[in-house]
Amino acid sequence: MSRPLILVTNDDGITAPGIKALIEVASEFGDLIVVAPDSAQSGMGHAVTLNNPIRLHQVALFDNIPAYECTGTPVDCVKLAKNILLKDRKPDLCVSGINHGSNASINIIYSGTMSAAMEASLENIPSIGFSLLDYSYQANFEPGKPFIRQLIDYVLKNGMEHGTLWNVNIPKLPEGQIKGIKMCRQADASWEEEFVEAFDPRGQKYYWMTGNFVNKDKGEDTDINALAGGYVSVVPSMHDLTNYKALHQLQAAEAFQKLNGHVSKAP
Amino acid sequence: MSRPLILVTNDDGITAPGIKALIEVASEFGDLIVVAPDSAQSGMGHAVTLNNPIRLHQVALFDNIPAYECTGTPVDCVKLAKNILLKDRKPDLCVSGINHGSNASINIIYSGTMSAAMEASLENIPSIGFSLLDYSYQANFEPGKPFIRQLIDYVLKNGMEHGTLWNVNIPKLPEGQIKGIKMCRQADASWEEEFVEAFDPRGQKYYWMTGNFVNKDKGEDTDINALAGGYVSVVPSMHDLTNYKALHQLQAAEAFQKLNGHVSKAP
Repeated sequence: MSRPLILVTNDDGITAPGIKALIEVASEFGDLIVVAPDSAQSGMGHAVTLNNPIRLHQVALFDNIPAYECTGTPVDCVKLAKNILLKDRKPDLCVSGINHGSNASINIIYSGTMSAAMEASLENIPSIGFSLLDYSYQANFEPGKPFIRQLIDYVLKNGMEHGTLWNVNIPKLPEGQIKGIKMCRQADASWEEEFVEAFDPRGQKYYWMTGNFVNKDKGEDTDINALAGGYVSVVPSMHDLTNYKALHQLQAAEAFQKLNGHVSKAP
Repeated sequence: MSRPLILVTNDDGITAPGIKALIEVASEFGDLIVVAPDSAQSGMGHAVTLNNPIRLHQVALFDNIPAYECTGTPVDCVKLAKNILLKDRKPDLCVSGINHGSNASINIIYSGTMSAAMEASLENIPSIGFSLLDYSYQANFEPGKPFIRQLIDYVLKNGMEHGTLWNVNIPKLPEGQIKGIKMCRQADASWEEEFVEAFDPRGQKYYWMTGNFVNKDKGEDTDINALAGGYVSVVPSMHDLTNYKALHQLQAAEAFQKLNGHVSKAP
């Protein structure tokens, strides 16, 4: 029986230490192919490159593992991998990361790492995005590796439901101090942005985004709470954004029915 | 009583005919402020500009309506509007679009128009993204206007649940032939990408993304089905991506409990 085929990507770029750490763990489980951006692409969300050409170059960065750097976004990487490099064999798993910095809570929607994982899940490839709560380039990925190992093993053995991807975040703790894994919901937190206002050398004003992550969601079942307690958080996530609760409420709302009826009868 | 304050944005850029049509309708209901990208930003998803400065310039494009063009992404526009221009007063509504082209189904995750609307909903601003199923620059936005008018009126009167935004798509039909409005779920469709392979003038290979939208979801309650039937589709959407069904299944799964237990006991 052939080994599983695992697609590896990220958003920090193919030379980031985080993807190297992920490759080290994933290569225990299968044959890898790495397709990742040629530069840092944090905050790219689910952006795709429509108005420009994209380049793809093979690079010899990892021993005996085919690897390609791509000029596009993280989502572009997954699309190119699937449509150009892996035409003949669908990967059994996609892993994205390890991101340098948290993608817990609402960060999932801004994150190139998680958007790449979501793109793979759209292609019915079981998919996990991994992030470490440490933005440093020199972050220590070792303490999280045993947990990454077990989650990859679990998904390869048990599969993943259609339309699902896992958002995995790892607390910044020394070796042996991570308490375990918790399955969570996404905390309802947000960013309170500030913009630095300054002037460029030509005297033109510019803004530069900065901000503070604020969590007002005190639920014990959230990813933020699990991480604060020293656990790896796993949020099974999805690309169906329908708010079914609101849908059912609106379908039952008298005011909306009137509107709907009224509009339906319009000339 | 003061008129409602309405923030208007889009992803096709501030000079696109679609935003002009939306401004015409929205200005019937309140005082507007327009903050939109200075160039087309289709397919930008929820990208934010972290590694570069952003510029904001006031422009005199619309009679008596303050308008700003921004060098950033659609999500940047909403963040700048909220944090720089509207520090003292939160908008009562955000409308994004009218997008030139469909944002139904899975397009919501690639769409700058919808990501801008989602960013506003993250700030607890009721938010609607409008799109017309016509990619043409010369698209006719008139037939959809009565429906846009009624949906804006509805939301200003009834509000919107926290964490919700509406994804509104309008079929490409002549005046008077749109049948009404349907409240829908997001169809489980996807893009089957193709990449055009070619060589640049220096002989270097490049790829250019193209693709076909494929809907295998035959549910009658989907946005795609409503649009095919001649209705305006409204999908109440959200930024909580948690797959609660998968979460509950995994929490109950024996295999995962074992994993969780095992990991928790690790040294």
